[in-house]
Amino acid sequence: MDDRSYDLCKSMVSRTYIAQAVEANVPVHKLVNRLLEQKRIPDDPVPDHVIKSLLNDLADMDTSNFSSNCGAGEREGRVYSQLVAECHYRMSHGIGRSGELTSVQPKAAGSSILAQLTNKMALHALKIAGATHVEDGFVVPMATGMTLCLCFLTLRSLRPSAKYIIWARIDQKSCFKSMITAGFIPVVIENILVGDEVRADVDAIRRKVDELGSENILCIHSTTSCFAPRAFDDLPKIAAMCKEQDIPLIVNNAYGTQSSKCMHLIEEAARIGRMDALVQSLDKNYMVPVGGTLFASYDSGFAEAFSRMYPGRASASPSTDLFITLLSMGVSGYQKLLQERKQVFAYLKEKLEVLATSCNERVLNTPGNNISLGLTLTTLDTDRCTLLGSMLFLRHVSGARVVVPSTVQTVERYTLKGFGTHCEKYPVPYLTVAAGIGMRKEEVDVLVTRLLKVLKEVPTRRESSAPSDRE
Amino acid sequence: MDDRSYDLCKSMVSRTYIAQAVEANVPVHKLVNRLLEQKRIPDDPVPDHVIKSLLNDLADMDTSNFSSNCGAGEREGRVYSQLVAECHYRMSHGIGRSGELTSVQPKAAGSSILAQLTNKMALHALKIAGATHVEDGFVVPMATGMTLCLCFLTLRSLRPSAKYIIWARIDQKSCFKSMITAGFIPVVIENILVGDEVRADVDAIRRKVDELGSENILCIHSTTSCFAPRAFDDLPKIAAMCKEQDIPLIVNNAYGTQSSKCMHLIEEAARIGRMDALVQSLDKNYMVPVGGTLFASYDSGFAEAFSRMYPGRASASPSTDLFITLLSMGVSGYQKLLQERKQVFAYLKEKLEVLATSCNERVLNTPGNNISLGLTLTTLDTDRCTLLGSMLFLRHVSGARVVVPSTVQTVERYTLKGFGTHCEKYPVPYLTVAAGIGMRKEEVDVLVTRLLKVLKEVPTRRESSAPSDRE
Amino acid sequence: MDDRSYDLCKSMVSRTYIAQAVEANVPVHKLVNRLLEQKRIPDDPVPDHVIKSLLNDLADMDTSNFSSNCGAGEREGRVYSQLVAECHYRMSHGIGRSGELTSVQPKAAGSSILAQLTNKMALHALKIAGATHVEDGFVVPMATGMTLCLCFLTLRSLRPSAKYIIWARIDQKSCFKSMITAGFIPVVIENILVGDEVRADVDAIRRKVDELGSENILCIHSTTSCFAPRAFDDLPKIAAMCKEQDIPLIVNNAYGTQSSKCMHLIEEAARIGRMDALVQSLDKNYMVPVGGTLFASYDSGFAEAFSRMYPGRASASPSTDLFITLLSMGVSGYQKLLQERKQVFAYLKEKLEVLATSCNERVLNTPGNNISLGLTLTTLDTDRCTLLGSMLFLRHVSGARVVVPSTVQTVERYTLKGFGTHCEKYPVPYLTVAAGIGMRKEEVDVLVTRLLKVLKEVPTRRESSAPSDRE
Amino acid sequence: MDDRSYDLCKSMVSRTYIAQAVEANVPVHKLVNRLLEQKRIPDDPVPDHVIKSLLNDLADMDTSNFSSNCGAGEREGRVYSQLVAECHYRMSHGIGRSGELTSVQPKAAGSSILAQLTNKMALHALKIAGATHVEDGFVVPMATGMTLCLCFLTLRSLRPSAKYIIWARIDQKSCFKSMITAGFIPVVIENILVGDEVRADVDAIRRKVDELGSENILCIHSTTSCFAPRAFDDLPKIAAMCKEQDIPLIVNNAYGTQSSKCMHLIEEAARIGRMDALVQSLDKNYMVPVGGTLFASYDSGFAEAFSRMYPGRASASPSTDLFITLLSMGVSGYQKLLQERKQVFAYLKEKLEVLATSCNERVLNTPGNNISLGLTLTTLDTDRCTLLGSMLFLRHVSGARVVVPSTVQTVERYTLKGFGTHCEKYPVPYLTVAAGIGMRKEEVDVLVTRLLKVLKEVPTRRESSAPSDRE
Repeated sequence: MDDRSYDLCKSMVSRTYIAQAVEANVPVHKLVNRLLEQKRIPDDPVPDHVIKSLLNDLADMDTSNFSSNCGAGEREGRVYSQLVAECHYRMSHGIGRSGELTSVQPKAAGSSILAQLTNKMALHALKIAGATHVEDGFVVPMATGMTLCLCFLTLRSLRPSAKYIIWARIDQKSCFKSMITAGFIPVVIENILVGDEVRADVDAIRRKVDELGSENILCIHSTTSCFAPRAFDDLPKIAAMCKEQDIPLIVNNAYGTQSSKCMHLIEEAARIGRMDALVQSLDKNYMVPVGGTLFASYDSGFAEAFSRMYPGRASASPSTDLFITLLSMGVSGYQKLLQERKQVFAYLKEKLEVLATSCNERVLNTPGNNISLGLTLTTLDTDRCTLLGSMLFLRHVSGARVVVPSTVQTVERYTLKGFGTHCEKYPVPYLTVAAGIGMRKEEVDVLVTRLLKVLKEVPTRRESSAPSDRE
Repeated sequence: MDDRSYDLCKSMVSRTYIAQAVEANVPVHKLVNRLLEQKRIPDDPVPDHVIKSLLNDLADMDTSNFSSNCGAGEREGRVYSQLVAECHYRMSHGIGRSGELTSVQPKAAGSSILAQLTNKMALHALKIAGATHVEDGFVVPMATGMTLCLCFLTLRSLRPSAKYIIWARIDQKSCFKSMITAGFIPVVIENILVGDEVRADVDAIRRKVDELGSENILCIHSTTSCFAPRAFDDLPKIAAMCKEQDIPLIVNNAYGTQSSKCMHLIEEAARIGRMDALVQSLDKNYMVPVGGTLFASYDSGFAEAFSRMYPGRASASPSTDLFITLLSMGVSGYQKLLQERKQVFAYLKEKLEVLATSCNERVLNTPGNNISLGLTLTTLDTDRCTLLGSMLFLRHVSGARVVVPSTVQTVERYTLKGFGTHCEKYPVPYLTVAAGIGMRKEEVDVLVTRLLKVLKEVPTRRESSAPSDRE
Repeated sequence: MDDRSYDLCKSMVSRTYIAQAVEANVPVHKLVNRLLEQKRIPDDPVPDHVIKSLLNDLADMDTSNFSSNCGAGEREGRVYSQLVAECHYRMSHGIGRSGELTSVQPKAAGSSILAQLTNKMALHALKIAGATHVEDGFVVPMATGMTLCLCFLTLRSLRPSAKYIIWARIDQKSCFKSMITAGFIPVVIENILVGDEVRADVDAIRRKVDELGSENILCIHSTTSCFAPRAFDDLPKIAAMCKEQDIPLIVNNAYGTQSSKCMHLIEEAARIGRMDALVQSLDKNYMVPVGGTLFASYDSGFAEAFSRMYPGRASASPSTDLFITLLSMGVSGYQKLLQERKQVFAYLKEKLEVLATSCNERVLNTPGNNISLGLTLTTLDTDRCTLLGSMLFLRHVSGARVVVPSTVQTVERYTLKGFGTHCEKYPVPYLTVAAGIGMRKEEVDVLVTRLLKVLKEVPTRRESSAPSDRE
Repeated sequence: MDDRSYDLCKSMVSRTYIAQAVEANVPVHKLVNRLLEQKRIPDDPVPDHVIKSLLNDLADMDTSNFSSNCGAGEREGRVYSQLVAECHYRMSHGIGRSGELTSVQPKAAGSSILAQLTNKMALHALKIAGATHVEDGFVVPMATGMTLCLCFLTLRSLRPSAKYIIWARIDQKSCFKSMITAGFIPVVIENILVGDEVRADVDAIRRKVDELGSENILCIHSTTSCFAPRAFDDLPKIAAMCKEQDIPLIVNNAYGTQSSKCMHLIEEAARIGRMDALVQSLDKNYMVPVGGTLFASYDSGFAEAFSRMYPGRASASPSTDLFITLLSMGVSGYQKLLQERKQVFAYLKEKLEVLATSCNERVLNTPGNNISLGLTLTTLDTDRCTLLGSMLFLRHVSGARVVVPSTVQTVERYTLKGFGTHCEKYPVPYLTVAAGIGMRKEEVDVLVTRLLKVLKEVPTRRESSAPSDRE
């Protein structure tokens, strides 16, 4: 309905009612226009029906939705199933164009605007989380590992002779594979153990740089967020070294936006050193389904180069999910989630400590990780540890990991000893659990209750070792 | 509702009605179980509500949807927005696991089953289209160009010393960029002109192989489907050479499943030669939104190697879209679409020929392309040709391309002369239009009417050159 | 999005694309404004997303949807469940006001407009169907029987001393009960048998009027559409008599809009005689769920009086359903349905005649009913007839009725002999089937196939008499 | 998916995952079966997707949804628009049969079960609210006024000579019209003023009964819930008299279920006296859209008689809305709403008293009404009072009523002096506001803020009298 529509309505109901209705909707129009103008997350949550209406208006701007459209190419946005069309809010052209992720797609003005707004709002979210000086960022509709891979491929053209990627070990397969998939030789820097905590060995990194020669090094691949007892990397030191040595720095900030500490480290690192890319998972940070990554950079030149590497038009689904989600949250909702996560983490720690005491175990002291925690399992042998993991999984606790230091993992032709503990010889087996964004206190209570129950049962339990979600 | 539910219903309505209702739903249960057992597209279209109900049941199998679930990891499938959850039918875990696209995700049995069923149905669809002996296939949630890139990266580890990719030129940027992004040197083989048709020069390919040495060649990158006047490659000859020389063959079958000729060429090539991968766009072939690719192979070893290259868990959105779409179509619906496309192509050709005659132009004779057609624009100068493109775009004809032979395009540091025509010096400017799957006869009528109108207007029109969707 | 929104979009995509998008949506705005202005069914079907968008805009006009609204009364349109809100497109205030069905509801401008547009479109639909001079009409959210009841109650205040309603018998319970519920004495006029056809006895009606005295008669309650072999009433004769005698005429046009004959009778009757109300079922005529009635009148005074009788605010659900449906159909779609029904009726007749011949039965000759048909069951005894009905129901044929002349039905304290046949002594048992709006030829084929199969089986079948949908 | 489906899934994912999924869904199956067995509101809220899945299964039980169904009648549940079908969860047959609201519809087992479950849950809701001994109840898809009307029509057949309905005045049009529409003579008993409160004059009722003769009285029409300063009727006294005099009692319990006092009065009245029917608005009590009524009775005989009066099949929409809503609430959610309303009422009272003091007005002392409150407007003249109402409406306060004692209202041929105040001569003008179910404390704050602002502005405001929502 447009202005004339409201005028015409006056033939049916009192003009006062129409005037009132038009006036009542002014705030909605203002909200939408502020979004289009400022391209930042609105202060307050936007109701679903307003989001849907906006998506509908954007969809109407795509050529494939013009009632008069005649598609004469090989890719005309035709969608067979009404169900599918609805899931995508009638936008079918994806994002980007001929291999540039952030380009406007001429056939799809609405989709293009949605993609741009999402990218700007995502950048805003990063700033809210603490990366206040980040320059550029956009949604990449691929896993974080694949996005890291594309970062490395982008660097290849800039540093054609470089073969090595220096990587402070974390025991997560995807990020390790990302280097191999990209065709580089990962140089694994073993971590050091400081108290309970496993930390990146920055001196060893520096020595390795000297050994290999900076021109042969594609980049340093550093990490902010990983399962305890692994601490975040000392990013400012690493970034400073990268700047000094002219080596790119790619940061796997997997789910680090949840931690103000991680974000401040990033800001500080960017201020004093060099940081080429910052890669974060959409689902782990923004409560959307798995599928996308937020690429960001303090160097808009690298961001542009990266954006040009993706060959083809990409899925708009992660962008759409994030668009809806950030509007639904509003700045206030997002900040509330961040604060609540902090509180839930503290609560989890407190509860775990009580439980630990009652079981003759203890919570690992890992001040360099404020997202996840480790609980020692010194009272159990290896089989019982494994059984514990299975039992938790079968009791509907997902995501808890039992780690036994003796595990050896081979990825492609590389072997990592002590896999899971982020170091070759961690002294004790343990269980890790995380307080991720969106976790509620009640979940902590349920977790601790189930964990306690299982810990009591497991020593005497005869249960054939069943699968866990980490098998 | 389960068996007991229906029993309980008998306290409310006559048991005859219940018996009748239960019996009436037997065909639906049979359909679902046949799908789970045979893992092929059902013969007939499945109604939307049955699809939704099946998706709902699958979603209930994901741990994040268990009412008793307690998520203690960093990625627990929490979804903030109800709108987003609904778009994904409450499945949020994506597909694959730790960098294996086809692995089962322990936290998400339902999502994993959906992904597997989709992959099997996609393979079935390929067989229906003519690739009857294809061995393996699955959905990759990336653009075709990015999927080609990942194919090349997969080959890198198998052929570490190879640097070159031999490519029979087609003038589409994404597939060219896919080679550069992967870090290889594209060796462009210029096409030959036979009559109106632009064909791959198989002899030149062979000579280039001899010149470079097969061990230095990563693969041959061949194409089945491209805009007229480009013809499909002579795949059987190329595949035979690849087998003989032990060079992998990667086929960009972008939208070739629509053409039984292309599919028969592929089958024949695989029979007598070597074919490592077959890459096709989901949106161009199956009427889903942009976002995914169907990777397929006649060599399950390569398929497995490829599947292991993707680092991370990937978006389930393209799989879900294809799942819904193939169920909605049924075998009968899909076959009907293929047949109708053939008829629409013939109709388009016929109509264009009549139009051509009336305008002193002619339809290019391109028997090697039965998806798109070219119409000469010899009566117009270059400016008028460009204007024609704009005018069509502004008159809501999307996807029609005006090609002027003098265009030069630079992609990264490579220059392609005559860009758009697939060869350095095509004799005439022309317009190409395609009869893609899902196009209707009425659209052809509209297209031809608008085209005729514009062709009449353009010679005398004073219109500032406006943008087209191909600018 | 408003004009300013589109302007703001120009900061993100080319202004040409925005201009094109705005222009492409002009037809949609025109369509909506034409609807608001002309208040008639649009010529062509309106796509679902346009309907949804319009409903969304209307919903935004209801006070309960103002973001700033503060509800301080006892009925403020609060809706607990999001699912329920969505089913009603966020409109919760119903229609009418303090007991006037067609009044504007001040709290709900959008709902009020929806109700008015629906009423006007419904009137338009009646005119398309043939009642070209009908004056007024609106949706009543009650069953046809209840609406007839309210017609009678409306007449009561106008004719306080009248006690009788003269009714040419049809064997359908609801319309009979409507008179009793309203507190009147139904005077049943038995029909006459002319050939196979059962017809209203207009002479007997006239005699009864004379006998009772017109001032004692509330109205004549006449019927256009009923199951064969009942023919439509001779409305012009009855209406002329009503005019002459000053007796109101209430016409139960249950599903008569489907038959151009019925509609022409109505027009003719209104032209030469008196017709106070015309009552038609929404679900039987317009393919919406059960729930509403279209009340119409050639006398806007009576329509207004009727509208004022409903005490309270009423459900908007039937109006919303009809609103969506008539927009979805468009004039062209509705006319097509009417034409197709005619063809399906002819096809059904033809098929039944062939079947009849093969079974030594015959199709009843009922030229005064062109919606349903009767097939004699002379070769079966009463038990077999009943069994036939059950068997059809159990074989998923719904709505077919087996009628055995000996049935006696008591409704309240009234007894109707030969119930189902519309007369006291119909010579043969028979089966009736209808060709209702929306029936497809394929359904006729299925029906005839199943019927033939059952007719062959029933003579020798040992099946305990099971329920039918007419039990 | 059935048992076999889950078995078949084991070919795709580990049988442990399947076992876990099946086990995880046991509580959902239990919940559904408990509902089907006990037919009461579940203790806890049921998630939307479970409700949708249950509705889907019920819909599958309706013949019109059988894939094999062949409709041969005049009403076969065909639905033209997919949008409409979805709004009704694919159930299109309505409720009831041939004029019995609670009968099973043979063509629609699923719809019939839904209707029965809803009726039982509605009865359960009434019991939760305090009517613990109520015998029977069901949803009537008509406004409360129309339902009252049908109650009176039901009584007509039982008391054919009775002409009068004795009614203790409340100033709400619909319930007054319900008597007139039904064709009876309303005998208005003027209320008495006790302090600020307007109360039914039970003695006057008794005198009127004696005067008219109980056999001439159809029923007493009494009210529990009405805008302050009207108090609830002294139901126990009235019911006892009704029992003694053998006069039916029909109680308009419009929105009384929100008040435990009203409900206790009803219980007490039924215990010691006679109560034939209890009529309550669905939207006012259960936060669903306008459209239905909950009829209930302590006399199942009368309930059955009433149920048989509705001529025709009725809309299922109000039943479906209530079904979804009561499941969504669960017992706990419903009880919480009731408690919160009590608290909000107390809060509203407290806030209004503060405001009153600051404005030299006072809150009327009406202990017999704990849903709404009155605020005197003694400092304003009549015009200013009216203006105040308009200003509130224009400031998006809906439902607040300004009442000026001098208003005279004519309904049909009856005149009510002092309309709005429930008595002929209320001493002061006032404003009434209600704390209805679902109102939140924040709304009270907004209301009081706006009210205060308007009260300050109105004495000096020059505003042309604009419409209010009560005009």
